[in-house]
Amino acid sequence: MITSEKAHRVIAAGEAKAKEIGQPMNIAVVDAGTNLKAFTRMDGAWLGSIDIAINKAFTAKAFDLSTKELGQNSQPGDQFYGIQESNHGRVMIFAGGVPLVVDGKIVGAVGVSGGSGVQDQSVAEAAAAVCK
Amino acid sequence: MITSEKAHRVIAAGEAKAKEIGQPMNIAVVDAGTNLKAFTRMDGAWLGSIDIAINKAFTAKAFDLSTKELGQNSQPGDQFYGIQESNHGRVMIFAGGVPLVVDGKIVGAVGVSGGSGVQDQSVAEAAAAVCK
Amino acid sequence: MITSEKAHRVIAAGEAKAKEIGQPMNIAVVDAGTNLKAFTRMDGAWLGSIDIAINKAFTAKAFDLSTKELGQNSQPGDQFYGIQESNHGRVMIFAGGVPLVVDGKIVGAVGVSGGSGVQDQSVAEAAAAVCK
Amino acid sequence: MITSEKAHRVIAAGEAKAKEIGQPMNIAVVDAGTNLKAFTRMDGAWLGSIDIAINKAFTAKAFDLSTKELGQNSQPGDQFYGIQESNHGRVMIFAGGVPLVVDGKIVGAVGVSGGSGVQDQSVAEAAAAVCK
Repeated sequence: MITSEKAHRVIAAGEAKAKEIGQPMNIAVVDAGTNLKAFTRMDGAWLGSIDIAINKAFTAKAFDLSTKELGQNSQPGDQFYGIQESNHGRVMIFAGGVPLVVDGKIVGAVGVSGGSGVQDQSVAEAAAAVCK
Repeated sequence: MITSEKAHRVIAAGEAKAKEIGQPMNIAVVDAGTNLKAFTRMDGAWLGSIDIAINKAFTAKAFDLSTKELGQNSQPGDQFYGIQESNHGRVMIFAGGVPLVVDGKIVGAVGVSGGSGVQDQSVAEAAAAVCK
Repeated sequence: MITSEKAHRVIAAGEAKAKEIGQPMNIAVVDAGTNLKAFTRMDGAWLGSIDIAINKAFTAKAFDLSTKELGQNSQPGDQFYGIQESNHGRVMIFAGGVPLVVDGKIVGAVGVSGGSGVQDQSVAEAAAAVCK
Repeated sequence: MITSEKAHRVIAAGEAKAKEIGQPMNIAVVDAGTNLKAFTRMDGAWLGSIDIAINKAFTAKAFDLSTKELGQNSQPGDQFYGIQESNHGRVMIFAGGVPLVVDGKIVGAVGVSGGSGVQDQSVAEAAAAVCK
């Protein structure tokens, strides 16, 4: 289970990384049931990324893998091409969604949006590292 | 403008009140543009109230008044009856959404959901009081 | 946690009750995260009730109480009037959704639709009784 | 017509195959009208695949062919490219949805999601074989 206290530590770690790279982010945490647990939009972060951060977190838990990996299997011709149409438009297939793992078990996920794919991924990984 | 720092203080004040009355809550803060700024779901709070807390905050800023007051004008026969069908189902017409006022100006709103109408309202008012 | 095996026993108990009262039903079971675990539409049951059964189960877990009780607080003038607009139309406020309780803890919910409110409720209660 | 009894046998055959290959699955059955007849989520199966399994079954009956074949005609440049935008996002264009054929007539479809495309397809084919 992901507690409120742990969710906030995940977000704080993401915010620290975002400040380090100088890019404000939207950061969302969902629990094991894909339900939103905590969210923050840093000052100056994109408004269009509120939805994306939440949905990246949803996607990473819904399929128990990072959105980056899912995206690598969802290009035209790939085995999951078209998956982004499912789940009422909530499936995000680019970098920034990472599962949260505690004692080898996926207990939730973090989703980050507000910069480039590389930036989003680095912030998500820094946030997720708190759980390990 | 509502900063990330202020949004978190609003939520912390709401959490403190929720703990005081012994009812876990979902608490959301939106900015002047009705866009989500911060959110938390306290441990044990209702899952169905994630959406409601966010939408109460949306509603309180979208119409610049509390959802409790809006609800009092939206019952069958009232002047705003039917307003809950607008804005893609995002308009909440029961207590728990309160505008955030700084120096006499509405800069955002807080939405609270997880208990009775009276409980939600008391937590939202305690959260909003931080801004004054 | 509600296992697949337990979900099927809940449905089987509901089906038995539905046959006893001679009314074919749609029966859905969701887990603690409100995610669908199992569903069946008995032969002859209403097609419009597929969605309703699933959403009654969603609602009963999302608010940790029966849809019958929720409905009693959601009539015009009541504290939760308007709640049915939230959660993207998934909140059902009439009888037939009942939480599943194991060892005093709510682990999911069952939703039943296909007959009158009294019939739906009796089948849902018979289904939920399996968990006790 | 696909009876409730037959739908459950289709799902049971799919579950048996899923256990054999060691990959938990979401399995859905729809009738000739594309309406959900039965569904199960095996313990440990992906939450994001609930919607996908149901929509693969929908798609396979809606177009009376497997989602794998449909997908082969829906890549960029193909005759059906863009079909996944139709039907409110319910059209799935990757493997795992297979029509159910009885006496040479399509009476419904099964949709499977929870593993790789190859795994989903093998489970769907094993499930559909029950009808023949």
